[in-house]
Amino acid sequence: MTVAIPQHIALAYDFPVIFTRRVFDPGNPVLADVLARAGEGPHKVGVVLDAGLAAADPTLPARVAAYAAAHSRLLTLVEAPLVVPGGEMAKADFAVVEAVWELTFRAKLCRQSFVLAIGGGAVLDAAGFGAATAHRGVRLLRLPSTVLAQNDAGVGVKNGINYFGRKNYLGTFAPPYAVINDHALLATLPAREIRAGLAEAVKVALVRDALFFTRLQELAPRLGVLDDEALLETDIRCAEAHLQHIAGGGDPFELGSARPLDFGHWAAHALEEATGGALRHGEAVAVGVALDTLYSSRLGLLAPAEAEAVLTLLTDLGLAVWHPALAALDMAGAIEAFREHLGGRLHLCLLAGIGRRLEVHEVDLPRLDAARQDLAARAASACA
Amino acid sequence: MTVAIPQHIALAYDFPVIFTRRVFDPGNPVLADVLARAGEGPHKVGVVLDAGLAAADPTLPARVAAYAAAHSRLLTLVEAPLVVPGGEMAKADFAVVEAVWELTFRAKLCRQSFVLAIGGGAVLDAAGFGAATAHRGVRLLRLPSTVLAQNDAGVGVKNGINYFGRKNYLGTFAPPYAVINDHALLATLPAREIRAGLAEAVKVALVRDALFFTRLQELAPRLGVLDDEALLETDIRCAEAHLQHIAGGGDPFELGSARPLDFGHWAAHALEEATGGALRHGEAVAVGVALDTLYSSRLGLLAPAEAEAVLTLLTDLGLAVWHPALAALDMAGAIEAFREHLGGRLHLCLLAGIGRRLEVHEVDLPRLDAARQDLAARAASACA
Repeated sequence: MTVAIPQHIALAYDFPVIFTRRVFDPGNPVLADVLARAGEGPHKVGVVLDAGLAAADPTLPARVAAYAAAHSRLLTLVEAPLVVPGGEMAKADFAVVEAVWELTFRAKLCRQSFVLAIGGGAVLDAAGFGAATAHRGVRLLRLPSTVLAQNDAGVGVKNGINYFGRKNYLGTFAPPYAVINDHALLATLPAREIRAGLAEAVKVALVRDALFFTRLQELAPRLGVLDDEALLETDIRCAEAHLQHIAGGGDPFELGSARPLDFGHWAAHALEEATGGALRHGEAVAVGVALDTLYSSRLGLLAPAEAEAVLTLLTDLGLAVWHPALAALDMAGAIEAFREHLGGRLHLCLLAGIGRRLEVHEVDLPRLDAARQDLAARAASACA
Repeated sequence: MTVAIPQHIALAYDFPVIFTRRVFDPGNPVLADVLARAGEGPHKVGVVLDAGLAAADPTLPARVAAYAAAHSRLLTLVEAPLVVPGGEMAKADFAVVEAVWELTFRAKLCRQSFVLAIGGGAVLDAAGFGAATAHRGVRLLRLPSTVLAQNDAGVGVKNGINYFGRKNYLGTFAPPYAVINDHALLATLPAREIRAGLAEAVKVALVRDALFFTRLQELAPRLGVLDDEALLETDIRCAEAHLQHIAGGGDPFELGSARPLDFGHWAAHALEEATGGALRHGEAVAVGVALDTLYSSRLGLLAPAEAEAVLTLLTDLGLAVWHPALAALDMAGAIEAFREHLGGRLHLCLLAGIGRRLEVHEVDLPRLDAARQDLAARAASACA
């Protein structure tokens, strides 16, 4: 005797990704409008704030409070912003996640309340994991404060922290309630941070959008000097490409193993681990993208001139395409760790042209090593 | 300048809930068929086993191993079953979750591998939370070993552990890959456990299905003596009702606040906490159902004869409808804790008839207390 009852569950999530400036100006309606979508207020909001941003922009907590006071019909700040360590430290252990759980408990936040996370990708990741797991999900508003978070990680549906020394070993898929990108927040960033964020724009253009790649080439002189309008245009287009990929890729929660947006990321993750975070994620992605571009070329998939154009663009944007840690990298081990995190068979995204990705399931280690030597040689000649 | 990009994400999950007997008989095709759905094997499977079940059924690990050997084309056991504490201890802290994370790490389980959790609802909850958060979700096969887990918790889409002294404070929504209910496993259970599981059947009949309630009345003499066929029929029908509710209720991940399946559960959760788990979940649900039935009657929503029929059925099934801890319960506080966990406005499910639920948003504490006195009086007269 066997009885099988088939269960089918359909779910739909809708959330806006908004680009604005000076979100906490009391006259800016964006945040209030987002909260109004949740029905009559006031809604309880607990703020989690990246310490790096709080240090760079010390009036931010007062501006948040002023905004809340001006919109008290819609929101109540349950307490002063919870300031948490920024950067990879935020997700190196459970400290931030635990602090968010304590915040939800202390302030009696419920599944209809909000956690407003303001900061870089790592803080959004850790706060997002905390919010997603308290009461099986308190609503999350993401307010990314770095280029990378605004154009990439912050717009997606994942969260996570590092564990067992592995990047993002723990996490969940949990769409945010809304993402609000305040371009004015980027003004507080060091140039190095802004530049690092451009690597993801190059990546997404390479795997999805040749026209965007051409536009990046046009913008390169202005992006190279971090021109504000050029950066905003790039961020919006990059976020759009990521969003289209997530929604249109047919696998938003990545139940399969393919991950085209992870072009160049197997090496990037390994380099971040190898350098103990000294190399920023975007910087590591630039090296990873350069490596897999040359590897695609070595395999005969990508024309040498196109590979050259990729490396030129990265360099014009001020991104280094080499790091000494790459010379020492156990590439086979790094690819295996990447496969394991994605699960199942290896899926590696390569390029068959600008804007044309190609998926492969095995690695030609000698050719990959040759691509690494190509990069090393370029670095050496650039220094000479 | 404000640009808003709307993001829409659609997801669908399909999983079977299967009732069988002796799932690990090498000739039973159920588990092999489930794994075959995942494509060519062998698939990596890590087993998490409830210590209570392992003690009651000591040959189980050998039977699992024999099954794996007979179906080695489809599955590879990555190691001997990980035996974890059963009952509420499983979810009292992070120990089981952490052990599952370590298992996934040690055995290099990936998002296409499986955690096969065998045990009671608490073990399934904790192992499910661990599996759902490692790599943002290793596939979970649930093999519930208690009546309650087979007809209720085990078929749903939630997991969780207790934290800050609150039941299920942490958790996620994560549909399993499959649920396999092995009716033969129930043979190892103490009668008290089996009986406790019947409370959820009464509950789901009351809020959804008057015909099922009538059938339970017909089956009561056989269920009262724990007749095997009667139990199986009840479990299948109960699971079916739960599944229909989750899929058809329009809110499988409970983004809203309504939770009709939680009829009687505000008091049940509070009683479990108040008795430190001495009262089993199903036993607490029986008391909670009895209380909210009489409260519905006190409010004039439910005919006294119908309320009487509910209490008679519970009693005929051998379930106590009173517990001394109810006398001391801070009912206003318990309802507030329940509201907070669900979030937003209070949603309390009451009865407007057998099989007819009604949602209310406030509590009439004097009438609720009168209902409690009614129950106390019944208990006193039953003892006299």
